[in-house]
Amino acid sequence: MSKHHSWPRFITLEGGEGVGKSTNLAAMAELLRATGRELVVTREPGGTPLAETIRELLLAPRDEKVAPDAELLLLFAGRAQHWQQVILPALQRGAWVLCDRFLDATYAYQGGGRGLDVGLIDSLSELVLKAQGPALTLLLDVDVATGMSRASERAALDRFEQEQLSFFERVRASYLARAEAEPERMKRIDAGQALAAVQRDVASVLSAHIAHCEIHHVD
Amino acid sequence: MSKHHSWPRFITLEGGEGVGKSTNLAAMAELLRATGRELVVTREPGGTPLAETIRELLLAPRDEKVAPDAELLLLFAGRAQHWQQVILPALQRGAWVLCDRFLDATYAYQGGGRGLDVGLIDSLSELVLKAQGPALTLLLDVDVATGMSRASERAALDRFEQEQLSFFERVRASYLARAEAEPERMKRIDAGQALAAVQRDVASVLSAHIAHCEIHHVD
Ligand SMILES: Nc1ncnc2c1ncn2[C@@H]1O[C@H](COP(=O)(O)OP(=O)(O)OP(=O)(O)O)[C@@H](O)[C@H]1O
Ligand SMILES: Nc1ncnc2c1ncn2[C@@H]1O[C@H](COP(=O)(O)OP(=O)(O)OP(=O)(O)O)[C@@H](O)[C@H]1O
Ligand SMILES: [Mg+2]
Ligand SMILES: [Mg+2]
Repeated sequence: MSKHHSWPRFITLEGGEGVGKSTNLAAMAELLRATGRELVVTREPGGTPLAETIRELLLAPRDEKVAPDAELLLLFAGRAQHWQQVILPALQRGAWVLCDRFLDATYAYQGGGRGLDVGLIDSLSELVLKAQGPALTLLLDVDVATGMSRASERAALDRFEQEQLSFFERVRASYLARAEAEPERMKRIDAGQALAAVQRDVASVLSAHIAHCEIHHVD
Repeated sequence: MSKHHSWPRFITLEGGEGVGKSTNLAAMAELLRATGRELVVTREPGGTPLAETIRELLLAPRDEKVAPDAELLLLFAGRAQHWQQVILPALQRGAWVLCDRFLDATYAYQGGGRGLDVGLIDSLSELVLKAQGPALTLLLDVDVATGMSRASERAALDRFEQEQLSFFERVRASYLARAEAEPERMKRIDAGQALAAVQRDVASVLSAHIAHCEIHHVD
């Protein structure tokens, strides 16, 4: 595998169902826009018209059993499209990119949750991203029951939300293990706190990163 | 890579645009049904509800440029689903499977046509098919101009049919190279002949294969 390249202005937001990713996105975007640089806010699965259609295929509940490796390949098909058409060009022109879920979610959901071989995810990641990724990832972490009860106030459950509790426990454990393995990049935020406290922690981590990037004129 | 396993009752039909694959399918199905065994007639891209939706994504003309590796991953996502939900179970219960396009088409279109790395297609094939494949492939081969003029009598062009002539020349050359490299499995049929002659050649190759399978009680 080639040497890893972290893009300083690529920031991802991760965590299980209902931890508050979408809720925290707007304030993060404001901090990033305040730098005066272009900002692209996007999400996975999705992020281009084709990739959003793939997202719908992935999330739609269906009678047909979905083969775990079909799910994994669909995710990376959408990621290849999103990376090449949106994320990489934005980073190359110096923009910030803020993405609601990215590669860590695949390790957590398909690796941890579905039990797919992590080496396989590594290979597809290498193929699609050529060892490139975010310099900063915020992991919003809260116990599964709390996340589920927050998320449950929404409409119908998607194909992932219909999984068992044990699935989400494996997703959470996998996220936490990744944060422990890469503490420089991946910062755990206690999302069990009141929203104001979560937002303060998110802003503090993000502001430190922005200051670091802008002071050192990273590119 | 693990040793290759050819399924004797798995038969694929290959060739470029308008060579006559769909036209020859019905007579082939009749010969196979005459053995008294179950027959599954299917196609790629497609073959399950999810995989047919992926087919639509692949074929639909769109403003968005489709990244070649996104296209390749979409194809293999559909193939993983089709293989695990339909083809492999059918072969395991002793049925014939007759498939209109399969893996060779990926080498021809994405490898030859798009110029994607053949090693990459090998890896995805190994991942999804675990070195399993058809024992017999009929390649309907005719010069590109003839195939295109036959196909052109149909409705709107799909995303592949909109390609340049040179694309289809590379597709054809790639198919022919595969037939030369694997003469036992892959039989070239001269599809430039009148339909009756093509059908006679198809029937002769297929009947010989059926006789071989039924006499040797292969499984
Ligand atoms: N710290 C918090 N305390 C209490 N409720 C919260 C907190 N953060 C978010 N919420 C609420 O929880 C619900 C889910 O939040 P949100 O949609 O942001 O989660 P998400 O991580 O984006 O979920 P998904 O994984 O489904 O996209 C919303 O109703 C939101 O208002
Ligand atoms: N040997 C032949 N001579 C003349 N016309 C033919 C012959 N074989 C098929 N055709 C005609 O060519 C057209 C295309 O045939 P067909 O749809 O079977 O091709 P195909 O390989 O399935 O195409 P596609 O790749 O688009 O699926 C049809 O109108 C069919 O009747
Ligand atoms: Mg959300
Ligand atoms: Mg056809």
